[in-house]
Formats: sequence, structure tokens, C-alpha cells
Amino acid sequence: MDAYNITIIGGSGIVAQEFLKILEERDIPTGRIRLLATHRSAGSVVHFRDQKIIVEETTPDILDKNDEIVFLTATSDLSLQIAPIAKGHGSFVVDDSSAYRMDPSVPLVIPEVNATDLEWHQGIISQPNCTTTPLVLALAPIHATNPLQHIVVSTYQALAGAGGKAIEGLRSETKAALAGKSEPSGVQPREIAFNAIPQVDVFTENGSTKEELKMLNETRKILNSPDIALSATCVRIPTFFGHALSIWAKFKNPINPLVARQQIEAMPGITILDEPETGVYPTPLDCAGIDDVLVGRIRSGNSKHELMLWAVTDSIRKGAATNVLQIIQEAAKRNLIRKS
Amino acid sequence: MDAYNITIIGGSGIVAQEFLKILEERDIPTGRIRLLATHRSAGSVVHFRDQKIIVEETTPDILDKNDEIVFLTATSDLSLQIAPIAKGHGSFVVDDSSAYRMDPSVPLVIPEVNATDLEWHQGIISQPNCTTTPLVLALAPIHATNPLQHIVVSTYQALAGAGGKAIEGLRSETKAALAGKSEPSGVQPREIAFNAIPQVDVFTENGSTKEELKMLNETRKILNSPDIALSATCVRIPTFFGHALSIWAKFKNPINPLVARQQIEAMPGITILDEPETGVYPTPLDCAGIDDVLVGRIRSGNSKHELMLWAVTDSIRKGAATNVLQIIQEAAKRNLIRKS
Repeated sequence: MDAYNITIIGGSGIVAQEFLKILEERDIPTGRIRLLATHRSAGSVVHFRDQKIIVEETTPDILDKNDEIVFLTATSDLSLQIAPIAKGHGSFVVDDSSAYRMDPSVPLVIPEVNATDLEWHQGIISQPNCTTTPLVLALAPIHATNPLQHIVVSTYQALAGAGGKAIEGLRSETKAALAGKSEPSGVQPREIAFNAIPQVDVFTENGSTKEELKMLNETRKILNSPDIALSATCVRIPTFFGHALSIWAKFKNPINPLVARQQIEAMPGITILDEPETGVYPTPLDCAGIDDVLVGRIRSGNSKHELMLWAVTDSIRKGAATNVLQIIQEAAKRNLIRKS
Repeated sequence: MDAYNITIIGGSGIVAQEFLKILEERDIPTGRIRLLATHRSAGSVVHFRDQKIIVEETTPDILDKNDEIVFLTATSDLSLQIAPIAKGHGSFVVDDSSAYRMDPSVPLVIPEVNATDLEWHQGIISQPNCTTTPLVLALAPIHATNPLQHIVVSTYQALAGAGGKAIEGLRSETKAALAGKSEPSGVQPREIAFNAIPQVDVFTENGSTKEELKMLNETRKILNSPDIALSATCVRIPTFFGHALSIWAKFKNPINPLVARQQIEAMPGITILDEPETGVYPTPLDCAGIDDVLVGRIRSGNSKHELMLWAVTDSIRKGAATNVLQIIQEAAKRNLIRKS
């Protein structure tokens, strides 16, 4: 891959830090790396390879045509403000927020599933929510030959998905709880230590949360299958890194779980851990720092058309930073990124 | 209610202790209370009202006709050994293990749902698993007029469901994890602190755990509806007391979520907490020491026949001790318990 200049908005956050870590791990050539963040974080120093990068404040005029790749991993509001500016400079913009995911002019991409959608990009690429990616990655290889009709999914989401402060909040609340005290940190709508909260993101008027609707809408868009039904319940649990998903899926044609396992196993980006009788299945503690989605407990449902499985993914890796890097690599391979 | 002699096998466990606490709270008249346990626990002292009860060792010949009610809350193996002996003495036996649940000669009872099944008891009554009870209690009022066809359920189960040692294991593992150490306590198949384990009870050859099959088989038996399909994924999470369930259900006829809410609300034993837009929904921390099943997030699924909801219950209360007391009270009212 060419050594592109990469500018990260939200550069002091945990996804940005993980992204830099993966660039180092994989020895990806890079040009100038800029980290932009809020006024409060500006001036802090981030170590990357042999460089010390000083975090700069994000301002509307800080970007120019030398920012070949702009990776947005802050808020949706900031993405809506910055992405058009970066696009105007001819940058290749990858947005990790929900701002552009359902925009019909913006591809929503999991490279293993729909890399070809990158071809019609108009400057901005969106990447799925961190719960959608493992779900779609695990089911897409079956859907390719046996159409998905209905998914019922319940999530077990880690605090990392809510950012670095949320991780600290879980730590502080847990220490207090072990000492017999209830000290909600405010990082979640309720105390999360030793609890489970059936709310991720805000509620919509139909009674579902935005997080739950994201799973429905993004799945349909990525798979280009607007008729898929999906019923999600998204729950925050007191784990630090791995998001887990309990998935039930119904397909148009009968499905043999052994065949399904082979199809899922053949999918790049997935590791099967599925020998339950000897205790082999993925748990959130298994996935921290791992790029692959881990899949286990593949079994039949009540009818021959149903399949059940359990998927675990590091929400900061394949749920965020890893997928962004893959989008960039795939776009570079297809000459979709302009050199300044 | 008459003051019956009650003998509890597993008398030093957390369910037995909670049962005694509820007897006190509700000021239930009792005759002689005996607590039987393992050789190791024998000799320990339990305070009940103004008495000090000395725990005795469970032996095959310790029971006699004066044990009017025998409450078994130990292991299935011990239940299989002791229940026939107690039944032989004419005792009213309530078994909290899985030993007799699917025995066609044994009623499996949630009093609010199928108290009439007590009438055909032959000495032994079984009570459902602590995940089945909240599921069936919440769905039974709808099923009464609109038959259940299919349930997909994912559980978020607390450590209390695995006994007092499991609670201590979660505490010790969590302390170690906060200090950066991994010290699995052995109370679960994996480290449970800051983790989620998709295994409760052992695996069967079809890939489901026994816990998951219990939910299917017990639901069918309690509702006397052998055609209900149920796909369960049972997961242990790092909470102490409340079991939570994410439930998707499909009914024969269309269902309006507002009507469903009214039907569920009218069910004794249920409290609705469902104003999500103002943050009102149940979490495990809300249910400790509460007898009712707490239900929230009642909403439509993808079709008019589908309903989704979230239920939380103290696995030691309605999931165990409270339901046993209700069985005893209901049986007493119906003169089904013999006075010695």
C-alpha cells in the first residue's frame, strides 16, 4: 500500500489509539499522521512508531488537500460538520459514526462482505456499528446461497463501545460495589457494575433504541436485502472489551448446522471456536486485541430453517479500527484513494 | 394456613435461607422447622424468628411422618434419593431440582399459572427452573387467549443461580481482575469476572445445554402446550442476583403491544416497569429481594404477531424460594397437605 497521509478526528480516543497500534503491528506504510481532537485534548502527545505526535485541535479550517485519508471517530455531529469539508478537499473519508450510514450516496462497508460497494463511493465511506459487523460477517456467507429471512439477536455489549471514560466508570463503580457502596459514575443510564442495562443509545418512539434500529437498517443495507426482518435487543453488561451476540436466524431454505459451520469458517475475518463439549466457545475475555470475529455454539433452532450461534468481537478492533484499516487497504488496492 | 412442620434439605444453602426470610417477612405460621444439609454443614446454627436451629446431616432415615412438608433444594441426585422416602412417609414434597420436572406423574407448578395442576399431585411437586418461571409468568396471560407459537430467548443469568460459593467466586475474581490479575475461582467453566459465558449447566449432544432444554420442555409442560417452539441461549454474566431475559415471542393471532402490556400487568406476580423514554425499565440491581417478576421494554417485533419484552427476576425469590412458598400455600388452601 502507498504511504498515505492519514488524519484522525477523535485522535485521542480509544479507537484512534487502537488504529495506530494496528498500523504498527501490521507494519503498514504511512505518510504524515495527524491526530485532531477537542480543545481539551489538544497538546497531548501520542507515541507512534519512533514519532511523538502532538494532538491538535479540530477546527473547520485545519484540513486541506494534503489530508489524503480522513478517519472520523468522534461524534455524529462532528462527522456531519467535518466530512463534507474533507470530501471537498478530495480526501478519502472513512466515518465511524452513524451520521452517514443510511445515506444512499455513502457505501456502508465490511470489506469481507461488500468491498465492491467501495467502487461507487463519492468521497465518504461509512462503517457499520460495532454490533452489526460481527452479525453480518457471520451470517453473510450463508445468506450468499440461502437468503436470510429473519434474525432475532440479543447483545451483551462491553463498556469499551461507549469510550474510554465508560471503561473507567465500570472500574470505579465496581470498586465501590465491592465495598458495599452504590456510586453510579454516570457513564451509563444506570449503575453498570454487577448489572445489565437494556439500553444502548437513546430510545425511539417505536420502543426500540437507535442501537437496535441500526442493526436492522445496516444489515439490510450491507447485504442489499431490504426485506430481511431483524428484531434486536441491545444490552450493556459489565465487561470491558468484547461485544457478544446471541443470534437466532431463519433462512429461506433448510440449513444443516455442519454445512453452516463450514460456510462460516470459510469466511475471512472469522475464527470458529466451537467444541462446546470440551468447553471451547468464545467469551468476551478471549477477544481483546483480536481482529477476527469469534464464532461458536453453532446449532439448529426448532426447525430445519433455523440456525443459532454466538459471536464475540473486540468492539474496538473488528468493530471499529480493524474494519477501517481494511476499508482503506481495499480502497487503496482499487486505486480509489487520491494521492495529494 | 395451618402451622406445618417443614423440613428443608439443602438447609444451609442460599435458597433455604431466603425461604426462611420470606416466612418471617410474611409472618407465615410454622410448626417444627428442620434444616438438613451435608455432613460438612451439620452443626451450624441458623437463626429463625426467636429460634436457633441447628443444621442436621441429611441421612436416608432422618425423615419420618412428622415431616409434613419436605422442601428439597440440594442436588438432583439427592432429590432422587430422598423424595421417594419422604413421599413414602406421606410428606408433601416440593422439589427445587430438575430431577422430577419432566416426570409425567409430577406437577410442575407456577401457582399464578397452573395451580390446578396441584390437584393431581402424588406426593411430589416440582418447581420450574429459575429462568423458566419469569418467562412463563410473563407470557402465560397472553397465551391464554392468543396461543404462543415460538419463543426465542436469551438469558443474562446471575451467579446466585449457581449458589452461594458462586457469589463469592465472582467477588474474588473481580477483586483480582481490578488488580490486573486473572484468578479464575472455578465457580464457573471460565473466569466470570468482566466476562459472559454462554454455558449454564452441561451440554447435550444436540449442542444445547441442559439449561436451554429445560426452558423448552418446562414451558411446554407448564402451559400444557407441547407444540410451542422455543430456542434458548443461556448465558452467565457477572451479576450477583437478578436473572434477566430478552424475550421474542410469536403468537397465533396479531398482538397489540399495548393490549399485551395490559394483559401482563393484570397477572399476579408481575410488576411492569416500562417507561423507557424516562429511563424506566428493570435491571438486575432493581430486583434483589423482590418477589415479583419485573417486566419492561414491551414492544412489537417485525410483524403484528410478534412481541418483545425484557424480564428481570430475583432467581432466589420468584425463581426459587417465593414460588415454593406459594406452592405450599396454594396446596394448603386446597387441603392437599396432610397433617401428621
